[in-house]
Amino acid sequence: MKLLVVGSVAFDAIETPFGKTDKILGGAATYISLTSSILNVESGIVSVVGGDFPQKDLDMLTDRGINIEGLEIVKDGKTFFWSGKYHNDLNSRDTLVTEVNVLENFEPKIPESMQDAEILLLGNLHPGVQLSVLEKMEARPKLVILDTMNFWMDTAWDLLVKIIGKTDVITINDEEARQLTGEYSLVKAAKKIHKMGPQFVIIKKGEHGALLFGDDKIFAIPALPLEEVFDPTGAGDTFAGGFAAYLAKKENFSFETMKSALIVGSAMASFAVEKFGTDRLQEVTQSEMTTRIQDFKELTAFEVEV
Amino acid sequence: MKLLVVGSVAFDAIETPFGKTDKILGGAATYISLTSSILNVESGIVSVVGGDFPQKDLDMLTDRGINIEGLEIVKDGKTFFWSGKYHNDLNSRDTLVTEVNVLENFEPKIPESMQDAEILLLGNLHPGVQLSVLEKMEARPKLVILDTMNFWMDTAWDLLVKIIGKTDVITINDEEARQLTGEYSLVKAAKKIHKMGPQFVIIKKGEHGALLFGDDKIFAIPALPLEEVFDPTGAGDTFAGGFAAYLAKKENFSFETMKSALIVGSAMASFAVEKFGTDRLQEVTQSEMTTRIQDFKELTAFEVEV
Repeated sequence: MKLLVVGSVAFDAIETPFGKTDKILGGAATYISLTSSILNVESGIVSVVGGDFPQKDLDMLTDRGINIEGLEIVKDGKTFFWSGKYHNDLNSRDTLVTEVNVLENFEPKIPESMQDAEILLLGNLHPGVQLSVLEKMEARPKLVILDTMNFWMDTAWDLLVKIIGKTDVITINDEEARQLTGEYSLVKAAKKIHKMGPQFVIIKKGEHGALLFGDDKIFAIPALPLEEVFDPTGAGDTFAGGFAAYLAKKENFSFETMKSALIVGSAMASFAVEKFGTDRLQEVTQSEMTTRIQDFKELTAFEVEV
Repeated sequence: MKLLVVGSVAFDAIETPFGKTDKILGGAATYISLTSSILNVESGIVSVVGGDFPQKDLDMLTDRGINIEGLEIVKDGKTFFWSGKYHNDLNSRDTLVTEVNVLENFEPKIPESMQDAEILLLGNLHPGVQLSVLEKMEARPKLVILDTMNFWMDTAWDLLVKIIGKTDVITINDEEARQLTGEYSLVKAAKKIHKMGPQFVIIKKGEHGALLFGDDKIFAIPALPLEEVFDPTGAGDTFAGGFAAYLAKKENFSFETMKSALIVGSAMASFAVEKFGTDRLQEVTQSEMTTRIQDFKELTAFEVEV
């Protein structure tokens, strides 16, 4: 199956306790499509960059088989730029700079070549843009996955609720799920989110793993315990990308398949945090991925008889 | 195998968002031995109570086959009393009252009938008392398990380090592991704790599950997602009790057995939080326990092929 990805393609400047970067390649759609390419899933990006976006990064994406016909280049505009500094625990960060630039007036266009994508992944972006993409699809994709964040709850509540209502799967972190529903218990929060629309609810808990709710069932996975998290930027996007790409590969949206997809997403996210930005994702091999998934099995498998 | 349990037998007065109790039965050794009795493991308590401790609670323990020969009763003393109020998220609490009472001058005595216990579980108590129990064992038990808390890091550091050094397995929560080692990464923290003595390190993460480190391997489990946590008091003790009792039942201390023991401990802890104090533990049946463990399997089992 083909995967259509909507989200930012951006520059990030990142500071962690381990060092800092100049402007490097970032953005939700970048992480997602890179992750899909590792799984050999055909993906296309709908996004916008400025004339300052380097040809080498465009080439890197196309070399990996990513369809960038829907990646608009505004020659006299500047690419979205985010800069942030992570605290010592790497669990929290301060945003230093946000320059929205060409994303300010972004009107997504879906190339004809991606109109038949069966899965649409609405990466973290303004919910109005996410809605407009869904409306521009000639036929509704078989599966719509939404990733979002607390910023849109504070600034675009009505549109966010509207796009959530049109979504099959939502990925959201624990604090955001609580903010969205007013429920502290994640079980209760997931129930409320189901009622808002999504049949499947994925709650991301960072270093504590993730939960999948659907079909009146719950699946839980821990995160792979890492000795060192080098740079958490893009981990959530990579997780969503691995999840969506696995479903595309399996051409199946059952709860059982989503469980496996959650593992794949977590495995891919565990790579993303090992180096700055997309550096590690750009070098991950299929065999590394298989080994990492095996690590997950060993981490969690048990037998018990009482 | 027989399990010797050292820890408080106490009164608690608990307030949660769901209600409050008068003085009810509590204490680490109580939760641990009750949990062991559900697994049909022979346990004995070394502890102390005052003349105010009700005969009906003593009878309840003996009726469940718990050996209380080592439970000293100081007729003219008062039982340890703790009172606390949980915040709305049930993840944090304020201590309202701590009356140490008969625990102040507690000198543990090990009854002859428990000298042959193969497993010693040193429940949360002053590390000096924990040390003295270990010294009073005629032969070192085959397995020494230590549970402790941050309070002793602040007040009895040297003794705590000493007892940790004599321990095979330590159970500790994530924040305490960080405080003990100065490492934020739990993988690094566990490595430092291994160097302090324990071959096996269990890091409890409350609603996020637990990690087991040992034999250069890691095992991770999520907690069972609960719609409602009614009263978290004793969850950590119950976890330790279920863990130790399972090892006693299996007469095996391998990493694989400890993985299963972690599941059993988590399952038992998930019961403990369903009602105030020990109320739920006093009614859990073997078949409920088996079902709960099965829930854990369904929560975490997956297949993935990429």
